[in-house]
Amino acid sequence: MKFKLEATSGNARAATLTMKHGEVQTPVFMPVGTQASVKALDHNDMLNLGAQIILGNTYHLYLRPGSKTIKKFGGLHGFSKFPNNFLTDSGGFQAFSLGKLDKKNTVQDESGIMFKSHIDGSKHYFSPQSVLDTQYELGSDIMMILDDLIALPNTQERIKLSIERTTDWAKEAIAYHMSQKEKGIGVDQNIFAIIQGGTDKEFRQLSAEQLCALTDFDGFAIGGLSVGEANQDMYDTVEWTTQFMPEDKPRYLMGVGTPEDLIENIDRGVDMFDCVMPTRNARNGTLFTTFGRVNIRGAKFKEDSKPIDEACECYTCKNYSRAYLNHLFRSGEMTYFRLASLHNLHYYLNLMREARVAILNDNWVQFKKEFYKKREN
Amino acid sequence: MKFKLEATSGNARAATLTMKHGEVQTPVFMPVGTQASVKALDHNDMLNLGAQIILGNTYHLYLRPGSKTIKKFGGLHGFSKFPNNFLTDSGGFQAFSLGKLDKKNTVQDESGIMFKSHIDGSKHYFSPQSVLDTQYELGSDIMMILDDLIALPNTQERIKLSIERTTDWAKEAIAYHMSQKEKGIGVDQNIFAIIQGGTDKEFRQLSAEQLCALTDFDGFAIGGLSVGEANQDMYDTVEWTTQFMPEDKPRYLMGVGTPEDLIENIDRGVDMFDCVMPTRNARNGTLFTTFGRVNIRGAKFKEDSKPIDEACECYTCKNYSRAYLNHLFRSGEMTYFRLASLHNLHYYLNLMREARVAILNDNWVQFKKEFYKKREN
Repeated sequence: MKFKLEATSGNARAATLTMKHGEVQTPVFMPVGTQASVKALDHNDMLNLGAQIILGNTYHLYLRPGSKTIKKFGGLHGFSKFPNNFLTDSGGFQAFSLGKLDKKNTVQDESGIMFKSHIDGSKHYFSPQSVLDTQYELGSDIMMILDDLIALPNTQERIKLSIERTTDWAKEAIAYHMSQKEKGIGVDQNIFAIIQGGTDKEFRQLSAEQLCALTDFDGFAIGGLSVGEANQDMYDTVEWTTQFMPEDKPRYLMGVGTPEDLIENIDRGVDMFDCVMPTRNARNGTLFTTFGRVNIRGAKFKEDSKPIDEACECYTCKNYSRAYLNHLFRSGEMTYFRLASLHNLHYYLNLMREARVAILNDNWVQFKKEFYKKREN
Repeated sequence: MKFKLEATSGNARAATLTMKHGEVQTPVFMPVGTQASVKALDHNDMLNLGAQIILGNTYHLYLRPGSKTIKKFGGLHGFSKFPNNFLTDSGGFQAFSLGKLDKKNTVQDESGIMFKSHIDGSKHYFSPQSVLDTQYELGSDIMMILDDLIALPNTQERIKLSIERTTDWAKEAIAYHMSQKEKGIGVDQNIFAIIQGGTDKEFRQLSAEQLCALTDFDGFAIGGLSVGEANQDMYDTVEWTTQFMPEDKPRYLMGVGTPEDLIENIDRGVDMFDCVMPTRNARNGTLFTTFGRVNIRGAKFKEDSKPIDEACECYTCKNYSRAYLNHLFRSGEMTYFRLASLHNLHYYLNLMREARVAILNDNWVQFKKEFYKKREN
């Protein structure tokens, strides 16, 4: 990966990542395509939205259709036909969280995670090396390493163990990746480590310093946030953590968040985000606009001829009225899900494009002020 | 409506209907857009498929969002943004069939049908005049009249009554429509009567002769078929009935059918069809091809890199493999529903376009032979 930091405005950063499947201009939001498909959309929809990178979920794709099947189609790009970049997670979070349904199904030890498939109950094992093998088969442009996840609240002892183990696994992962690259495997694939430590400053510093010392990593993520903590705690933790992260590599805040979360964390030096929120909320009737959230199921929209957001240039707003979307939603029509998902993803991707322009123009503070001001009306 | 019969080949016909919202070239299949949306697709999808006319369901649209709401948006065209033609049914079939769930909810008498809404239980009444008022508000290009539907089997007496009542209602409907047009209402809207009589030759002849004598109708439909009778009985009934129908007006076989049904009924002089089959079957995994039906959920497609049908020029076949569609279907991804619906509708619409070319070239018999031959392999 080529990383070029183009501008800063306050702590906000604008950079360009150049990878095998094209450039990613930051700040960037990565739509979630769990099953090699962003829900209700296809690869041309994503291209029309201007998506430069999509997130795929290794756990799901490993189980179905299987990473070996996807490899036969030329990886995620050939399988889904989306030609731009993919980031894949390690699968550890889903193995951990879907395993939690029955505690006996998930076993974590110093070598990895044993879990049962939520589809057919079959047993599987993820190790720091195996999740990379899977991601080599998926052919993602950015691979995430396995980290040792724990339920919170937890004992200080267990939190400390998880940070140590995450560092150990990161060392194993990067060593494995460098050796695989020497064999010609994953040479065009980048690898990110994941900083843990909850909202504890000491643990975050420890994790960040240990991981960022591993300079073969192409980038670093902040994990374990947006799991129910107060927004301000998340913001404070990010602000604290980014100071220990290198300036010349991308910073990815995992699983975040609302438009406000994106703005606040760009403000604290984050470059990359992913979240199911725009697509999931679309399906639930919640649409994002420059003036805040709209619930399209509301009776007041039944005869409203305006688009969702008159300031929006998306396909849905250019074509359809609130009344038509209200009708489709109330009728349970599938067409609604695509139109609403297109709108919400356009909102997120466009917000990032506008943020980038503001940073490049060193106009970030004003941009942030206006973002909030539009929401006050 | 301007009706131009351009060619016949055997009993098969190629015609052009010219209406306010453009030409309809026959034989034509009308995709079903019950709720002012063809399921999983939007108006640009329909334009890209080359759809010249879509069917909307008056019963559903009358109840939700309400025809008065749709009128405020410029009718179905303005509301859904589909700029080509709409045909709407009378709503009688749904009032009858959804009312059947509780016999007490539906009351038919000589003046119309009383029924309860399946959405909120509210009481409504459809008369020959009221269903036209609703369709004036919907602004459809072709309106269907209310007919007196009955459950089969039934007594000869009740069947005879239904034919007489259907004729009476047709007379009321056409008189009402002519008087409304004089007032400037529905002047660009066309109106079709519906021939009933089950599979009984005598009743079909009676109904056809009585209705086709009402020369102010713009076209005639054959109703009450594809309700469980043997295919051959349907074909025989259509063959029998079309001889009593005028040559200079369109003939519409309601609610039919499979690709084979379309071919057999074009062969018997039918011009227009509608059916939920291509979209409903798509959602259930059944895809139509030149070589017959394919169930995309089959395990044999898991690593199949071919498109659904190598002879198909549709968006889905031009872009995606059977393996990807198999994966999306098995994962329950909504993207599947759009891609599969696009394929099946393309198949139906393209079959009609090819049939038309064959008729124009007086090559219908050969075309029909080849249609079946491709399916034998």
